[in-house]
Amino acid sequence: MEFLVPFIAPAREPLLSERVQHKLDRKTKPLGALGRIEQLALQMACVLGTESPELRAPQLLLCAADHGLTAQGVSAYPTEVTHQMVLNMLAGGAAVSVLARQHGLAFTVADCGVRGGLRPQTGLQRLWVPGLEEGTQDASLGPAMSQAQCEYALAQGAQLLASLPGNVLLLGEMGLGNTSAAALLMQRFTALPLALCVGRGTGVDNQGLLRKQAVLAKALAVNEAATTPVAVLAAMGGLEIATLTGAVLQAASERRLVLVDGFIATAAVAAAAALAPDVLGYCIFAHASAETGHARWLQALQAQPLLDLGLRLGEGSGACLAWPLLVSACALLNEMASFDSAGVSERSL
Amino acid sequence: MEFLVPFIAPAREPLLSERVQHKLDRKTKPLGALGRIEQLALQMACVLGTESPELRAPQLLLCAADHGLTAQGVSAYPTEVTHQMVLNMLAGGAAVSVLARQHGLAFTVADCGVRGGLRPQTGLQRLWVPGLEEGTQDASLGPAMSQAQCEYALAQGAQLLASLPGNVLLLGEMGLGNTSAAALLMQRFTALPLALCVGRGTGVDNQGLLRKQAVLAKALAVNEAATTPVAVLAAMGGLEIATLTGAVLQAASERRLVLVDGFIATAAVAAAAALAPDVLGYCIFAHASAETGHARWLQALQAQPLLDLGLRLGEGSGACLAWPLLVSACALLNEMASFDSAGVSERSL
Repeated sequence: MEFLVPFIAPAREPLLSERVQHKLDRKTKPLGALGRIEQLALQMACVLGTESPELRAPQLLLCAADHGLTAQGVSAYPTEVTHQMVLNMLAGGAAVSVLARQHGLAFTVADCGVRGGLRPQTGLQRLWVPGLEEGTQDASLGPAMSQAQCEYALAQGAQLLASLPGNVLLLGEMGLGNTSAAALLMQRFTALPLALCVGRGTGVDNQGLLRKQAVLAKALAVNEAATTPVAVLAAMGGLEIATLTGAVLQAASERRLVLVDGFIATAAVAAAAALAPDVLGYCIFAHASAETGHARWLQALQAQPLLDLGLRLGEGSGACLAWPLLVSACALLNEMASFDSAGVSERSL
Repeated sequence: MEFLVPFIAPAREPLLSERVQHKLDRKTKPLGALGRIEQLALQMACVLGTESPELRAPQLLLCAADHGLTAQGVSAYPTEVTHQMVLNMLAGGAAVSVLARQHGLAFTVADCGVRGGLRPQTGLQRLWVPGLEEGTQDASLGPAMSQAQCEYALAQGAQLLASLPGNVLLLGEMGLGNTSAAALLMQRFTALPLALCVGRGTGVDNQGLLRKQAVLAKALAVNEAATTPVAVLAAMGGLEIATLTGAVLQAASERRLVLVDGFIATAAVAAAAALAPDVLGYCIFAHASAETGHARWLQALQAQPLLDLGLRLGEGSGACLAWPLLVSACALLNEMASFDSAGVSERSL
């Protein structure tokens, strides 16, 4: 399957933006008093192309896959946890399941290469990449995927997204070892020192962190030849990350909003932005994760996260927690009275 | 009406706290990976006295009143805006109305002394204090209320709260000039320099800010004799603030959770805490406001706000925006699977 980066128009439309800003400024409140929520409303209106945006059928897409790198002991939990957690998610017991239920979000889990063979079942999409049905290769020994395999994952993500309804995509992921893959991508896409990109993931101790850093340094060296965004994503990313990258590109090309979760979801967005920078205008960053590197990566992307709650779970849990703020921003833009309609006096000083 | 500070037990119960922490630690996630949301769940469980807390009939109580201080030109908007905004709130067009509707929050507006005489109507409670039906006296010339009037407001707030169902109270307020009253209370309760307590409120310009500071310095000097918490609240507070203070004390005495909004709501809580320090254990601080002084006041109260979105609207809008995080914390505590129940492997490293 070949992957062509879709055309993505700039998210911001100057004329519409001006009209929405005027609408916000006429609402019964001091100018700018709703702070970040007003910026959010403005962004959402521009992406959805209307002064009166409505959020329709929000889709939480959770991509799961395993990582060959885990053979090097980069995670605090055994690899079978990916498989077990996917079952937990489908059974409704994971954090993301609880939160998706709370907010009535449609929840799709995609098996992008989870070790141990998940049986077909309701709510689970099988998005295997030929040759990588049990996860990626060990990136410390060579590329995690071939370029063709990576494009296959990108195309599958785009295709799945295109088949889903709605105008908002929420990103979720599961995959033991994927903070390692994300840290590698962060290093390559931002050129920051590796130590600033590597964190404790699910919670490795000090010794584990040193081992993780050493393994990732090796992976960077082994994959030095990869230079294009897709080559970097193939060499050091993960199947769940590449699938999400494809979904994000497709979502932006359809002018959907993308609500980004934490460190891993940011990796998918950063890869998408390396291919099509305008994708960032469609992205709302849900939170600053407690995972080392995330805050700095957001800074590098000039992204201003909505929440800062010390979360480091992934799964899309942060995106779900931020979701009601998007609903609020829309409701305020659509439903608040103006000074004129409510007969409220304006500034006297 | 006399006001007796009700008995408030410490919010935290060590044995229950330990059981809830254990329950959180057995959930299918790395230890502590839900960050601040886990602390929130723990606090809520302790206040509600159960490992499996349920939020019932949350009550958004918005107290409105006018301030004699506005005669000195401390606000960017004319005083009649209090009255106009209360009508806007009751008609459903204010930010807080939109957000209360979004979240299905019961919404009570209390007229605690709004200039211009609000007619009795659905959703509006009349909590007038004899002699102050049109708002407080000018605190730059003498006490804003007598001690007896302040106690009357405290008692009415407590009484109203006691009549409302549910186990969560969300605080809202409206009152032109009330950032001035709150700044005065902040100065007196924290002993920080006045300049750190005074902000732009609805948006006074530089000249307006200097005038506001000068007026408040005068009010502090004139009311220097007030030393007990109730005397300080009477001399420099507001009717909406005192009514909320009474409601907060009553709520904590009934072991309800209190979701605090911004600068003005914090003033009410700080006054309550000056009377009964254990009240703070029942309070969840929704957000750090952009109003000068709020972040520092939260620090002084050792409060960790949930959101930081540059809000400076008041009304309870920040409390409403934070509300779904409380629902999430409860749902996660009640509905997430444990390692045992989900058959997920534990740490290997």
